[in-house]
Amino acid sequence: MLINGRKQDTVPAIDRGLQYGDGLFETIAVVEGYPCLWQRHMQRLSAGCDRLCIPVPDSKLLYDEVLEEIAGRAQGVIRITLTRGPGERGYSLPPVVHSTRIVQWSEGRPPMPGAAVDSIVARICRTRLGINPALAGLKHLNRLEQVMARSEWSDPSIQEGVMCDSDGYVIECTSSNLFLLWRGHLLTPNLKNCGVAGIMRGLVMDTAKGLGMKVSVSDITLEQVMGADALFVTNSLTGIRPVRMLETQAFAYDAIPAELVDSVMSQGFSHE
Amino acid sequence: MLINGRKQDTVPAIDRGLQYGDGLFETIAVVEGYPCLWQRHMQRLSAGCDRLCIPVPDSKLLYDEVLEEIAGRAQGVIRITLTRGPGERGYSLPPVVHSTRIVQWSEGRPPMPGAAVDSIVARICRTRLGINPALAGLKHLNRLEQVMARSEWSDPSIQEGVMCDSDGYVIECTSSNLFLLWRGHLLTPNLKNCGVAGIMRGLVMDTAKGLGMKVSVSDITLEQVMGADALFVTNSLTGIRPVRMLETQAFAYDAIPAELVDSVMSQGFSHE
Repeated sequence: MLINGRKQDTVPAIDRGLQYGDGLFETIAVVEGYPCLWQRHMQRLSAGCDRLCIPVPDSKLLYDEVLEEIAGRAQGVIRITLTRGPGERGYSLPPVVHSTRIVQWSEGRPPMPGAAVDSIVARICRTRLGINPALAGLKHLNRLEQVMARSEWSDPSIQEGVMCDSDGYVIECTSSNLFLLWRGHLLTPNLKNCGVAGIMRGLVMDTAKGLGMKVSVSDITLEQVMGADALFVTNSLTGIRPVRMLETQAFAYDAIPAELVDSVMSQGFSHE
Repeated sequence: MLINGRKQDTVPAIDRGLQYGDGLFETIAVVEGYPCLWQRHMQRLSAGCDRLCIPVPDSKLLYDEVLEEIAGRAQGVIRITLTRGPGERGYSLPPVVHSTRIVQWSEGRPPMPGAAVDSIVARICRTRLGINPALAGLKHLNRLEQVMARSEWSDPSIQEGVMCDSDGYVIECTSSNLFLLWRGHLLTPNLKNCGVAGIMRGLVMDTAKGLGMKVSVSDITLEQVMGADALFVTNSLTGIRPVRMLETQAFAYDAIPAELVDSVMSQGFSHE
C-alpha cells in the first residue's frame, strides 16, 4: 500500500487515526483497472474533511496514487484512509495538521455489468447507533457501533443487519444503506442524526429522480420497513442488493424497477 | 515505545485500531517511577476487553512492559493502547484475534502529594455525546466526539468543556469526569448511556463513601450543575480540580471537603 505516496505498510502509533479514530475513509470498487464513482467519493471525502477540519487532499495526487496502487490489476477494492496525522497526547487539534493518506488495495469482485444482482437475507441488530448530528453522514474512523452490530451474528447465510438509532428509527445496515419501495415511492432513512451517507445511496437517489420516481428521505420505523413492498440495500462494492428476507418476513423484489437497478449497476461499476 | 513487547513505533496500517477505532486505551500517571492506580486501570481495561470481545492481556506482562517503557524515569504518563489487531477488510471480527498492545511514554507532571490543587475554568460544549449503552463507560478508541468538542475553543485560559448527551443531560467533560456538591451530597452523572467511567472518578466515589459522604450517581441537568454548591472535575493525570468558573458563573470551592481532596490526591499519585 501507499502511505503519503510511499510504498510502506505501517503508520506511526502516535497517528491520531489510531489514537482517537480521528479521520475518514472511502472504500471504492475497481473495475477494468479504474476506481468507480471517483468524483462522488472525492466529494464525500472533501465534505468530511471540511466537517472535521482536516485539510482536503489534492484529488489529482490521490487519483495518481490510486492508479499506482491498482498497478494495472483489473478488479478489486481500493480503500483510502485519511487521518489527522501524528499528534501529541490529548484531544486538542495539532497547531498544524500533517494528515496521513493511506491508499490500500484489497482483493474483491465488484459485480459485472449486466450480471444478475444478488439478493440477501438480513436481520435486525440489537446494537443501536448513537445520535450525533455533528458526525452524521460522515464515513469516519469511529466504527465500533458497526463492529459491535456485525459481531451479533456469524451465520453466513445472513448478509446484513438493520440498525436503528437510539430513538428506535431505522437508519441503515452495518455496511450498507437501506431503501424501501412503498406504494410506488422510494424511501430511505434520514441521516441527519447518524449513519453513513453512502456513495451508492446518492447514486440511487439521483438515478431514481432522473427516472421520474418519487424519492423521499424520511424518519422510518421498523413497522414501515416490515410493511414495505420491497427492500434493497446499497453499498459501493456491491451496488443494489434486494432483501429477500428480513428476520422471518419474506419480501418480493418485483416492485424494484429493473431500469433503476440496471442504470445504477452500470453507472456504479464502470469507470468515468 | 513498546509494541507487543518490542521497541518500535509503528503499527501495520491494517490494524483495526486504525481502520475502525476498534480498541481501548488507558492513560496512567507515573510517579516515582511507577504507574499509579494500576489495579483500577487493569480492571477497567479487562472489563472493556470483555465488552468488546478482545482477549484480556496478561496483567503481569503488561506491568513489566510498563516498567520497561518507564525506564527509570520518575514522573510522566504511560498510555496503553490495546486494539483488536490486524484484520481483513470489513467489520466482521477476525476468526482469531491477535491483539496489538502499545505501551507508550510521554512527558507529563502529575500533581505532587501535598501540593495545592489547581482550579479550572470551564465552558459548555455544543458537541453532544451520542447515546450508546453498548459502549458507555468504556475508554475506547472512538473519540471523535471529544475531538470535535475540544476543537470548539482555543482560549488557553479555559481548561475544560462540559458535554451533554443528545437528550441534554450532563455527562462529563472532554477529558475528565464531573462531580457536583449539592446540599452536602456528592453527585456525578450516570454513565449508563455514554461517557467514560474514569479511574479517578471511581477513586473519588469510593473515598467519599469511605469518609461517610452521601454519593449519588444520577441524571443531571445543566440547571442542577449551575445550582451546585461546588463543582470539580477528575482525571487520572490531574486528580481533583475544582471548577472556579463555568461560562459566566463563579463557584466557590469551600464546599469540597479537604479530607476528600487530600485522600484522593495521595492515593491517586502514589504507587501501590
